[in-house]
Amino acid sequence: MTVRQLPLPELVRACADLGVPAVGLWREPVQEYGVAAAAELVRDAGLAVSTLCRGGFLTAADPAGRAAAVADNRRAVDEAAALGTDTLVLVSGGLPPGSHDLAGARARITDALTEIAPYAAASGVRLAIEPLHPMFAADRCVVSTLGQALAIAEHFPAEQVGVCVDTYHVWWDDRAPADLARAGAGGRLHAFQLADWTTPLPAGVLNGRGQLGDGAVDLPAWCGRADAAGWSGPVEVELFNDGLWARDGLDVLKETAERFRVHGC
Amino acid sequence: MTVRQLPLPELVRACADLGVPAVGLWREPVQEYGVAAAAELVRDAGLAVSTLCRGGFLTAADPAGRAAAVADNRRAVDEAAALGTDTLVLVSGGLPPGSHDLAGARARITDALTEIAPYAAASGVRLAIEPLHPMFAADRCVVSTLGQALAIAEHFPAEQVGVCVDTYHVWWDDRAPADLARAGAGGRLHAFQLADWTTPLPAGVLNGRGQLGDGAVDLPAWCGRADAAGWSGPVEVELFNDGLWARDGLDVLKETAERFRVHGC
Repeated sequence: MTVRQLPLPELVRACADLGVPAVGLWREPVQEYGVAAAAELVRDAGLAVSTLCRGGFLTAADPAGRAAAVADNRRAVDEAAALGTDTLVLVSGGLPPGSHDLAGARARITDALTEIAPYAAASGVRLAIEPLHPMFAADRCVVSTLGQALAIAEHFPAEQVGVCVDTYHVWWDDRAPADLARAGAGGRLHAFQLADWTTPLPAGVLNGRGQLGDGAVDLPAWCGRADAAGWSGPVEVELFNDGLWARDGLDVLKETAERFRVHGC
Repeated sequence: MTVRQLPLPELVRACADLGVPAVGLWREPVQEYGVAAAAELVRDAGLAVSTLCRGGFLTAADPAGRAAAVADNRRAVDEAAALGTDTLVLVSGGLPPGSHDLAGARARITDALTEIAPYAAASGVRLAIEPLHPMFAADRCVVSTLGQALAIAEHFPAEQVGVCVDTYHVWWDDRAPADLARAGAGGRLHAFQLADWTTPLPAGVLNGRGQLGDGAVDLPAWCGRADAAGWSGPVEVELFNDGLWARDGLDVLKETAERFRVHGC
């Protein structure tokens, strides 16, 4: 997503050229290219798929909405398995229109996962619940802290459901370091992502994630915490940023790889 | 601040006309009008000043910055005392430029309060630390949760330092209800404010607070929690909102009073 302006073949070639060993993919460009073709493309380039983003959106209160979400998440699991990644990232979904019931929405996520998690496990795919920054609680993700994500995950076996930690979403939370350690100790740290926090935030607040080193996040400290929690998997850089998307994708990818070497893990 | 387009005399007259018994004032318009004159104005109208906003901004790492902040907070205490309110709200301040050290900034707040709190107590003014939404952690307020605010306040006697709870800032936090109860039990609930959460957020995210009833916050539930925590003081409505500021101030004040009767406490 950091370089969504790059078509999949160019992205894969550029990663290979730059020595980037793994890439996190999003469902929409994969579906557009064809899941089997995308799987072949990355495999032929010797590239691993670190995670597939994203399943989730499990907060619907009506049976039809819930059934549609579960079915879509099963398709996401199938796509992840076809791509050869073991991790599907989940963004949980916001409040249904007109609802004020955060606790109810969070409970429905757990309920829906009772159907999705065993299906995923049967395909060799684990689920990673990603807490999103509290500014997204109403309209995108009612899971706002790593503690909340872990509390949901802990209803399931660790190899089925864990968490995705993105520094952009948790950097402000004084409880997150201890929760990251708890996730690691419990075998529930399933994905780890870096982004920096820059201000002012843009309208809508979705596409203002900072390039590594430009913002307020102590990235080396978070890399150290992930390391101490036993994380040895790929470290993703996920930047939703209108400014980066407006630039040449190859330049952005090179810059990001350089920033990762200086400020990352 | 909800109707900052109204000059102080019009605001005071309109509150009296509408049966609004107390008003929260901000330092800048009070200073502009003259502190003594403003005090006389509200007193003559039979209006109470619920709180003065705001002191704080205590995160400077350099001695000169710290000394200037302490001096400014003493002036804010003097202004609060002159206005006859017993509560000064504190917005703690963000990270100093280039800093990544949230924990250090939070510790400096506690340190600065050791000078300000006794001075305020001697003037009959208590301090209310307001946690701001985590989206302000970098540039405005490193105190992001009610739990963090209470942890700072609890270094001091309850009658000197407590918290200001604004639904806009804490509504997403599943720990906030228990922390609100803890604040009440400890005698540290010093101010209570309502605002709703609406999306999309505007650029800069400061001026998009929702009119009561327009958003995602379960306002009656929060009023019930404040009540259960023993809150019997004034309930403020603080809406930073470009849309409301562009309208006729008297209309906005009337609308807000009506919304308060339907959705408020």
